[in-house]
Amino acid sequence: MAEKEKCTLVMFSGDLDRALSGFVLATTAASMGMEVSIFFTFWGLNIIKKNEGSIKSKGLMRKMLNLINRGGSQRLKLSKFNMFGLGTWMMKKLMKEINHPSLDELITMAKEMGVKLYACTTSCGIMGMPEDSLRSEVESLAGAAYFLGEARESKVTLFI
Amino acid sequence: MAEKEKCTLVMFSGDLDRALSGFVLATTAASMGMEVSIFFTFWGLNIIKKNEGSIKSKGLMRKMLNLINRGGSQRLKLSKFNMFGLGTWMMKKLMKEINHPSLDELITMAKEMGVKLYACTTSCGIMGMPEDSLRSEVESLAGAAYFLGEARESKVTLFI
Amino acid sequence: MAEKEKCTLVMFSGDLDRALSGFVLATTAASMGMEVSIFFTFWGLNIIKKNEGSIKSKGLMRKMLNLINRGGSQRLKLSKFNMFGLGTWMMKKLMKEINHPSLDELITMAKEMGVKLYACTTSCGIMGMPEDSLRSEVESLAGAAYFLGEARESKVTLFI
Repeated sequence: MAEKEKCTLVMFSGDLDRALSGFVLATTAASMGMEVSIFFTFWGLNIIKKNEGSIKSKGLMRKMLNLINRGGSQRLKLSKFNMFGLGTWMMKKLMKEINHPSLDELITMAKEMGVKLYACTTSCGIMGMPEDSLRSEVESLAGAAYFLGEARESKVTLFI
Repeated sequence: MAEKEKCTLVMFSGDLDRALSGFVLATTAASMGMEVSIFFTFWGLNIIKKNEGSIKSKGLMRKMLNLINRGGSQRLKLSKFNMFGLGTWMMKKLMKEINHPSLDELITMAKEMGVKLYACTTSCGIMGMPEDSLRSEVESLAGAAYFLGEARESKVTLFI
Repeated sequence: MAEKEKCTLVMFSGDLDRALSGFVLATTAASMGMEVSIFFTFWGLNIIKKNEGSIKSKGLMRKMLNLINRGGSQRLKLSKFNMFGLGTWMMKKLMKEINHPSLDELITMAKEMGVKLYACTTSCGIMGMPEDSLRSEVESLAGAAYFLGEARESKVTLFI
């Protein structure tokens, strides 16, 4: 059997708009028969933090960071026109009106279609994010070397 | 005849600086004999909205969105140091001084060199942008699957 | 001897977080035996400006630009949660705590590992940055065509 073509994404940004773009590309690539991986690093980790509960970090600074930078797919904001939440709320309404899946639905779809989600080991370390703060769709932690190993065998690689 | 090498860009951002970067790369790639496509999605659509007239959207929210997010190549701002327009004005002056083409000139050049411009179907739908709000250089609407089809045959693919 | 696989990055952003991400990828790719080049353009030039001294530009506007947009690896800020410097300071502390190299250390490491750093000719021209404002690790100026030449032979190309 022929090997599948690969598509590998880095999700660096934690903005709602970029997250949507990333997951639309990931699910479309999977539907076209590609083998898709997404590596979440830095602010992108906010996309795959659990929406519920608080994040148990060690040390005062990491506790503070995870308070102000709480994350979770349902808390993400647009990179522009957030307007104290009004713009983000409007964008979600507009998406619903034309039956576009929400970010949460896209994450579930991606998982069901075999898209692999990885959290950057180093970023999790720096930011003090224990593995149990990540949603269940996440495969595992992975480092930059693992990403580059996938990327160099990929037909499509994007930094989002 | 050998097939041309492909270069495929996603323009996600609607910032003047990133737009300039995208079109400089696109026109340079075309001048090197590559077959270039640019896919405009989300805020990137602002780059290819007509500069003249108003955008006729349906529904109150989409009308509002296209008012505050009017777009058009001549209205774009720098992502940094916009300083109420002063920084953007200065950057345009500095470019002119060394005879660097403006964004509008780059778009015209790109078209003349055969660069293909596509507007993301889904983003246009969500944001309520009718096709006649797009400038004449735009080829057509296209979806994520079309982009990925091009990208996986490309030598260079960038998300800007 | 087999040719090395190439990895080519565009550093468009001058944010500390994206700069760190770029240099972690570059040094990791080099450690995996890849031949790595980074092209610094637009705000990304701030990463490779010397930290010491002032930048001697010609003309009032360029002098002003290089004052407000001073740059230098030690002056970069996070794209989010800078909070008048507090967030950036905290992030640097958190990195130090787990012995993660600083940006300056990563730049030195990259150079030692053979990563080639190029400054975009056109951006330097527009912004009025003389070559002696760039740190010694920078190879030379290079244009978009040189970047695309490298990119189309690369296994991994990212726009950061």
